[in-house]
Amino acid sequence: MGELSEGLTQVLIPVAALIGIGFALLQWFLVSKVRVSAVADYNGRDNGHKSSLLGDAELETGVRVPEVTAKCAEIQHAISVGATSFLFTEYRYLTIFMGVFGVIIFLFLGSVKGFSTKSEPCTYNEGNLCKPALANAVFSTIAFLLGALTSVLSGFLGMKIATYANARTTLEARKGIGKAFVIAFRSGAVMGFLLAANGLLVLYVAINLFKLYYGDDWEGLYESITGYGLGGSSMALFGRVGGGIYTKAADVGADLVGKVEQNIPEDDPRNPAVIADNVGDNVGDIAGMGSDLFGSYAESSCAALFVASISSFGLNHDYTAMSYPLIISSMGIVICMITTFFATDVFEIKYENQIEPSLKRQLLISTVLMTVGIAIVSFFALPSEFTLYNFGGSKVVKNWHLFFCVAIGLWAGLVIGYITEYFTSNAYSPVQDVADSCRTGAATNVIFGLALGYKSVIIPIFAIAVAIYVSFSLAAMYGIAVAALGMLSTIATGLAIDAYGPISDNAGGIAEMAGLRHEIRERTDALDAAGNTTAAIGKGFAIGSAALVSLALFGAYVSRAGIKTVNVMTPKVFIGLIVGAMLPHWFSAMTMKSVGSAALKMVEEVRRQFNTIPGLLEGTGKPDYANCVKISTDASLKEMIPPGALVLLAPLIAGTLFGVETLAGVLAGSLVSGVQVAISASNTGGAWDNAKKYIEAGITEHAVSLGPKGSDAHKAAVIGDTVGDPLKDTSGPSLNILIKLMAVESLVFAPFFAAHGGLIFKLF
Amino acid sequence: MGELSEGLTQVLIPVAALIGIGFALLQWFLVSKVRVSAVADYNGRDNGHKSSLLGDAELETGVRVPEVTAKCAEIQHAISVGATSFLFTEYRYLTIFMGVFGVIIFLFLGSVKGFSTKSEPCTYNEGNLCKPALANAVFSTIAFLLGALTSVLSGFLGMKIATYANARTTLEARKGIGKAFVIAFRSGAVMGFLLAANGLLVLYVAINLFKLYYGDDWEGLYESITGYGLGGSSMALFGRVGGGIYTKAADVGADLVGKVEQNIPEDDPRNPAVIADNVGDNVGDIAGMGSDLFGSYAESSCAALFVASISSFGLNHDYTAMSYPLIISSMGIVICMITTFFATDVFEIKYENQIEPSLKRQLLISTVLMTVGIAIVSFFALPSEFTLYNFGGSKVVKNWHLFFCVAIGLWAGLVIGYITEYFTSNAYSPVQDVADSCRTGAATNVIFGLALGYKSVIIPIFAIAVAIYVSFSLAAMYGIAVAALGMLSTIATGLAIDAYGPISDNAGGIAEMAGLRHEIRERTDALDAAGNTTAAIGKGFAIGSAALVSLALFGAYVSRAGIKTVNVMTPKVFIGLIVGAMLPHWFSAMTMKSVGSAALKMVEEVRRQFNTIPGLLEGTGKPDYANCVKISTDASLKEMIPPGALVLLAPLIAGTLFGVETLAGVLAGSLVSGVQVAISASNTGGAWDNAKKYIEAGITEHAVSLGPKGSDAHKAAVIGDTVGDPLKDTSGPSLNILIKLMAVESLVFAPFFAAHGGLIFKLF
Repeated sequence: MGELSEGLTQVLIPVAALIGIGFALLQWFLVSKVRVSAVADYNGRDNGHKSSLLGDAELETGVRVPEVTAKCAEIQHAISVGATSFLFTEYRYLTIFMGVFGVIIFLFLGSVKGFSTKSEPCTYNEGNLCKPALANAVFSTIAFLLGALTSVLSGFLGMKIATYANARTTLEARKGIGKAFVIAFRSGAVMGFLLAANGLLVLYVAINLFKLYYGDDWEGLYESITGYGLGGSSMALFGRVGGGIYTKAADVGADLVGKVEQNIPEDDPRNPAVIADNVGDNVGDIAGMGSDLFGSYAESSCAALFVASISSFGLNHDYTAMSYPLIISSMGIVICMITTFFATDVFEIKYENQIEPSLKRQLLISTVLMTVGIAIVSFFALPSEFTLYNFGGSKVVKNWHLFFCVAIGLWAGLVIGYITEYFTSNAYSPVQDVADSCRTGAATNVIFGLALGYKSVIIPIFAIAVAIYVSFSLAAMYGIAVAALGMLSTIATGLAIDAYGPISDNAGGIAEMAGLRHEIRERTDALDAAGNTTAAIGKGFAIGSAALVSLALFGAYVSRAGIKTVNVMTPKVFIGLIVGAMLPHWFSAMTMKSVGSAALKMVEEVRRQFNTIPGLLEGTGKPDYANCVKISTDASLKEMIPPGALVLLAPLIAGTLFGVETLAGVLAGSLVSGVQVAISASNTGGAWDNAKKYIEAGITEHAVSLGPKGSDAHKAAVIGDTVGDPLKDTSGPSLNILIKLMAVESLVFAPFFAAHGGLIFKLF
Repeated sequence: MGELSEGLTQVLIPVAALIGIGFALLQWFLVSKVRVSAVADYNGRDNGHKSSLLGDAELETGVRVPEVTAKCAEIQHAISVGATSFLFTEYRYLTIFMGVFGVIIFLFLGSVKGFSTKSEPCTYNEGNLCKPALANAVFSTIAFLLGALTSVLSGFLGMKIATYANARTTLEARKGIGKAFVIAFRSGAVMGFLLAANGLLVLYVAINLFKLYYGDDWEGLYESITGYGLGGSSMALFGRVGGGIYTKAADVGADLVGKVEQNIPEDDPRNPAVIADNVGDNVGDIAGMGSDLFGSYAESSCAALFVASISSFGLNHDYTAMSYPLIISSMGIVICMITTFFATDVFEIKYENQIEPSLKRQLLISTVLMTVGIAIVSFFALPSEFTLYNFGGSKVVKNWHLFFCVAIGLWAGLVIGYITEYFTSNAYSPVQDVADSCRTGAATNVIFGLALGYKSVIIPIFAIAVAIYVSFSLAAMYGIAVAALGMLSTIATGLAIDAYGPISDNAGGIAEMAGLRHEIRERTDALDAAGNTTAAIGKGFAIGSAALVSLALFGAYVSRAGIKTVNVMTPKVFIGLIVGAMLPHWFSAMTMKSVGSAALKMVEEVRRQFNTIPGLLEGTGKPDYANCVKISTDASLKEMIPPGALVLLAPLIAGTLFGVETLAGVLAGSLVSGVQVAISASNTGGAWDNAKKYIEAGITEHAVSLGPKGSDAHKAAVIGDTVGDPLKDTSGPSLNILIKLMAVESLVFAPFFAAHGGLIFKLF
């Protein structure tokens, strides 16, 4: 097999990225064909889109209700404005953070060699001169800023398309469930493809620009590129945590007063927190999740590139082989495009129970096709045999070894996805058992739900363990890094089905608020129930890939910090291990308490409005939505700082005070413990949510016996759902960022820790 | 400092143990002076004690109510019969298990050298001949059986004294809170001293008997003695899990129907599950916990002895220094006796809010005195300088180094105890915040409670980490082992204040069932609230010491299995690490689901009785207590098997199929992850229980605003309490056995794994 030429590689990668962006725009165009038309002077507002007195949808239902469309438009507008304004406020804070942290990176890395501008002998490429440490400081900082900006952009674009698509999905639901599904799915795809393609393109451009300075010093080039991953993940951390607190404070607050106390339906427009709740879905589940998965993608690419740069690819300056991670991602974009057609054009959804299988089919199709894609890339982009360097030793690897590494990551992702679906979908016994336990009240519901979450950890961990063992054995740390990349190679499809969830959730909210017919709401509920499951699947992918990415970054860190062995039987490493394993709990304590406190404030505000605004419950008074939005905003911005500080400071403190070995222990500990807590939290929450939906939908005889809405069992289910909210949307998904971010941060700061770390042990 | 002579050591250890037993009997005698007198023919039963128509207690209350005393006696009798019969049934199963597992131990260890009876060269004591591997198989099996029997005995005796003391505490509560406190505390002390002294005595006798065969082969002697720890902990596992499922199925079932549905008080005699509930306290919280702490004690002693035997003590045959762990325990018994006087004779409890400080004071006094005790032992039992061998290297250690190791373990225990108290006592803000969150319902209560549990992990982990670092640095693995022993050196006091909890709980139950005056119940409630806190403290000690013990056993295992380094950066170790970290979750899933399912059955039975037994709620019908006892019994015996199998098989499978290095990873992973889950589960449950009690007691203005019993906030608090039941009394405390047991099992089977392990990797 001949390798691709460097020139062709240089062309193929950006072309794939541009095709991805084009495809995303095409999907956006198709979504935009559904008109959300505001009656021009309805309430004096306009949602900014073309006005039309008559959408084409009403004709199908046989009722001409331009007011409904206008109402939907108005709500959509309110959600979009709320989400945009929150994100802008959040980004103001993040800009300050980026500035400060950028300076820290520069100072720490610059100080490694006392800000000297002299070239130095290379670490790995022996006998040659490499660029000075100061250059690493400068370019790492630039890469960090680039990663941060791309991450923010990914989240923001996702939010934009989601708030553009939500009302459109509602309106399409009038035509039938299949149409609504396609709109929601296409909108998810816009986000998926934009993110995957942008991430690839920016990375590609950055590498080529950095090369102008670094030239043949690939070691320095790819070391500074790791800053890109750090930037991506640190933004993701704040996005996930801030967005997660925002959305769940609103959601919990709205549910506790609305559903539990006042007995009004979810998303009822009389509930003052309802807009905040819907805004939350977009800033937390969409923008936060987008930043998160972008971070995973950026980090696994950077980890793979870094390891490759110190292997024979880098030493031999084999550009195509070096770019193997990027070519895999390029192939992924193409494969995901093909996969998307199956959902939007090949199979048609006619019944509610076809939604989940269809989304699952997407996962399967993309995995099967991508396996072929990986094989092609592995044979054309890699030399048939090459050498990897690993902790002092070297290892001869064949190209088909790498194929197996990427493929096993990909398939491990599928296993995780399917298991997650099994444990969180109400089509299977686990969730049905949880629903059944509501018979005896909220306490047994919570007990069963927690047990389900714990149990759902087992198979994903085995899948991850097998992937690690195989890829590690075949190609050492590079194997792990590309396995992570394999799991993320179908990220565009993964994100599409993930983003589909909150969009459907919002669509349901809009249907309720706009007072659409009961059956429309039933359709959006069906979309949403599948969305809960896919959201859980998305989180499963995020955490599974995070585990592999973190391990790869960890390996790169160990290599970069010059650690020989990370021996558990030394006290330095062991205390790191046990403290590291504690960090996910500390972090979860902070985020859950934050959601709880913010929700309490929200509850008080909503209660206050119900008590003081005359006619609010009767529908004649108007709630003050803005106040609730403000509470969520203030709470999330204030409360995201301590957990963020914990994650960012832990490696700095461990590395500086206790040295590189203890930090290695911390990374390993937080990785192996965080994965468990994260999977369990996500699945528990997803299961509770769907147990509640199972009772509400009342499709089976069993479900009917537990319902209807308002029954004791249903009330118990609502309590479980509420408990699950912060678990599944705040602490759980933030934990994968915790483990990734600590690892990538350690990698970036490794030269500093290696040079100056371990102050405490030096003192004694 | 001259060392004690061997002869004096031989005398001092058994004398201390016998003094401890004598002291326990003295306390028992003092408790027995409170007469629980059944009117001879009351209901045709007799509780087996001297009958007296008139106790001396009634006179104080000014009401002559012999029926009340008789009623108490009757209830006590029912509880005692139920607990005894359950334990006997459980022990029948355990006898089968002991037989089977004994055979497995014999076969596995015997097969290491093909059941050869030839002497072999020693592993550590180079140049000398040691006893054959077959002897190790035989004596390990004997030690295992001895440990198992002692463990069972510890649990059984604890249960006996607890069911003897519960009604006596109730009756004393009529005289005042101080009197009741002293009775409950003395009863706890009986258990504490019996257990500590028995454990020491049996171990001492076993060593001396084994020596008759082993003679100068101390390496073989102390290797086979580790079976004692394995026996202790495997019984403890089933005791904790079986007892935990029993007690919580009954408790949850009783509460869900009684308190939540029928609105009758806790422990109301109309509730059919009430006897099962009270029986459960004795078989789970008392017998299970007794076995558990005995297991910790046995394992830390064995770990320390094993490590010492392969160090200069063993090689030089320095008997007194070898016995250092046993002398520390002997000193502990004496110190705890002195400490007990402070609680029973020096300080007097007059008000309810003095109970908790008094129990805390016990911890502090015993710790301070024991520090002096350790210093004395360290200077008289150890040579001033000696050599330890550690993973191939050797280390010169001074006697005051070991003093620091033991002392830091002891003080780390105190820190853990105090922090646990802070997070679970309703005198401080964490529990009060949780209570406050009940304002907005059960969901926020659960969220806040979970967050509290996570947060409560932080400082204990740091305390453990510091203890590990210091003791490891000073004296390698031997340091860790004696640090664990240090934490457990005041086990008699720890157990006394721990067992005090369920005794008070039972006393309250009896007060309610016997229809004693409201203020008596208030007094027993105050005792019980403090008991929840001390139970949590006891669990804190159990898990803290388990962490240290497991690490010491882990180190001994690594040494025995001939592993050079446990390098996280090898795939074999890493997959072990991540799978090991998953096991506590798997285990918790099983135990929690078991409690949930058993509770569902109990709920259905209790509901059935309320629906079908005429006049049950009015108090004219008689509930069928026996059926509820049967449900709990059957459920716990059936459900304890899968989690037990998981814990016992995991090391066997990992070691046999994947080899010693993967098993090392599994042990490290389950240790660092299990500790967190266990601490968090125990404290969350304790906090919920006391948040509920805080609202019920209504002592502060804040508490009054949340109450009274039956308010919405109180109902929410009850749900939290119910969720916490399996967390704090089933899965949480069983987890520390999981980590210890896996470690000691690995150590016992290490010769087999080293010889024949790793089948899968050998195949590929």
